[in-house]
Amino acid sequence: MGTKQDETKRKLEELGNMLLKQIQNGENPFMDIPIRALSNVNFNSETGLIELGDATSKRFFFNIAHIRKFVQTVQAAAIAKELVEVDKHLSLRQVFYAMRRTIPGTKIDVVDEQTESNQAIEDLELITENPRELLHINANKNGAAAGKITIKDKGDIIDWSKLGSGGWAIPSNTENIEFKKIEAKFVIYMEKAAMWERLHEDRVWEKMNCVIIASQGQATRGIRRLLQRMNDELKLPVYVLTDFDPWGWYIFSVLKFGSISLAHESERLAIPNAKFLGLTAEDIKKYGLEKQKIKFTERDKSRITQMKEYDWFKSNKEWQKQFEGMKKFAGKVELDALVTKGISFISDKYLPEKFKQKSWID
Amino acid sequence: MGTKQDETKRKLEELGNMLLKQIQNGENPFMDIPIRALSNVNFNSETGLIELGDATSKRFFFNIAHIRKFVQTVQAAAIAKELVEVDKHLSLRQVFYAMRRTIPGTKIDVVDEQTESNQAIEDLELITENPRELLHINANKNGAAAGKITIKDKGDIIDWSKLGSGGWAIPSNTENIEFKKIEAKFVIYMEKAAMWERLHEDRVWEKMNCVIIASQGQATRGIRRLLQRMNDELKLPVYVLTDFDPWGWYIFSVLKFGSISLAHESERLAIPNAKFLGLTAEDIKKYGLEKQKIKFTERDKSRITQMKEYDWFKSNKEWQKQFEGMKKFAGKVELDALVTKGISFISDKYLPEKFKQKSWID
Repeated sequence: MGTKQDETKRKLEELGNMLLKQIQNGENPFMDIPIRALSNVNFNSETGLIELGDATSKRFFFNIAHIRKFVQTVQAAAIAKELVEVDKHLSLRQVFYAMRRTIPGTKIDVVDEQTESNQAIEDLELITENPRELLHINANKNGAAAGKITIKDKGDIIDWSKLGSGGWAIPSNTENIEFKKIEAKFVIYMEKAAMWERLHEDRVWEKMNCVIIASQGQATRGIRRLLQRMNDELKLPVYVLTDFDPWGWYIFSVLKFGSISLAHESERLAIPNAKFLGLTAEDIKKYGLEKQKIKFTERDKSRITQMKEYDWFKSNKEWQKQFEGMKKFAGKVELDALVTKGISFISDKYLPEKFKQKSWID
Repeated sequence: MGTKQDETKRKLEELGNMLLKQIQNGENPFMDIPIRALSNVNFNSETGLIELGDATSKRFFFNIAHIRKFVQTVQAAAIAKELVEVDKHLSLRQVFYAMRRTIPGTKIDVVDEQTESNQAIEDLELITENPRELLHINANKNGAAAGKITIKDKGDIIDWSKLGSGGWAIPSNTENIEFKKIEAKFVIYMEKAAMWERLHEDRVWEKMNCVIIASQGQATRGIRRLLQRMNDELKLPVYVLTDFDPWGWYIFSVLKFGSISLAHESERLAIPNAKFLGLTAEDIKKYGLEKQKIKFTERDKSRITQMKEYDWFKSNKEWQKQFEGMKKFAGKVELDALVTKGISFISDKYLPEKFKQKSWID
């Protein structure tokens, strides 16, 4: 077992020993649980991260309102301990089934819905200060990578520049990947697999000496952690390529600042120096994409108004300018629209120009 | 350029030459388009495929009701010809943008919505008898593969058994993959990436000498074509692992028999001898999964009633038994529920027993 695994196991045993001690002392067993609510989430302008505050609440065993959640958290801890010990992983859905057992002598199940087991797992992450990946519980798998990096994973040496048209399939858990040979100078993350295939066919990662990574829509935790590790451990800048679209901007925002629902994970998942490389209001004019406008829906409009007021965007002049520009334009433009300028325009013109002129947004 | 590409180009030129000749002869230019409607779709019990019939309709240039679609099909053909010539690929969305140009001297765009370009591409597939992949137009990318096969793709040699926890990311277009070294004896396809990660961590493909492939939900065209090619060219049986759920059964049905909307592609995408390896009514009893029932929604119920009457299920006694069993059970059971029997139960017990007893459904 590796050091990380030992540490996780120790944390889980600590929780068990604490409860045991409380019981032996004749106390009402309890756990201190950090509060995961908007009231306890702040944007730290120094670190540039959305962070969880210090507020906690006590959860007691002998308390009608607490006991169900108390038992669920202990059950989740027991399963995590088993997973760590046997060195196997389960998905959130699979853990739900593993937790869904009937308490002997009753007709009560420990969990009825997956939302309950999910919450118990989140509580356990906070109590043990171990992300679910270290508790051997995996989230979704999605996405692909290609480029000038060689990794070691599960004993295999994998060269991301020699994987044909498909690339490396990114696992849900990227905690234990070892970076072996790094030629790439930066990473481009994009929200759409089809755009990844366009850049991959043009061998952008070879021409620009970089890595290209995509999932579909919001990045998975596995991808966020992978990007963060490449940024943090390998010092590779991360550029995010999305549409001129509030939802694309939100994808960037989560990658860079973290998210409210995973505020306790920002330090592990967010990339405060990530840069936005997607379409800007100026690009629309520069490349004559006005005709490619997709009109706003009401949902888009309210999303912009909402996001414009987020602390992390509010304090940034350039982003305020973009929000104003988008409101004035009253529509979105997809990166795919660059195809109107040529099949490989994005690879041959758009990206090289962006980098040459350093025209990204922080 | 390879032979396939030459052939596709020839077909596209044939279309252009035919139209040119009609114009030179002073005729009203027209194309014969196979009809893609339920009325022209049949289940061929001999081939075991959902197939398109022979009915066609003429589409004329000088016809107010036809001209828009006529022009769109020609525009799609022009783009496909360019893509084939420069040996590049675009996604459906990107082709929409490439087609979206204003006709000179008018304010009319060739296409306003992606549904129009999609339909033009489907028409072009039928006219040229070339699937969109050979027209260099790609569908979605998703999914991963691992196992005892080595392929060659874009000049790279890729060993699917040496790709760490992630596996090979399957591209949207699997037309040009070359199979190099085949040790695997069969292929298991599953609908969920989380189940793939479970089997992959247990190294099922190594223990059973096979290949495991998953996407998320319905298989992409790239995966369907890949499975079909492995079945057809390598003679590897394909087993489909889904939940006890009408939607999982539908995924199996599309893989095996084809689908109504892509009836013209059945020959290229469907696998008539695919076998169902997912949970059956008997498995629920055998493995004591009754408690893991997920109650039917109204939508589930009507889906079963509908599917039970499909020609390809109606003529199959075993499937009729399963539909009856599911109706009686009045609920679904997920494969993930096997976790209640043990973390690796599916790898150590379920799959070996299924194969030993040959208890799959044709």
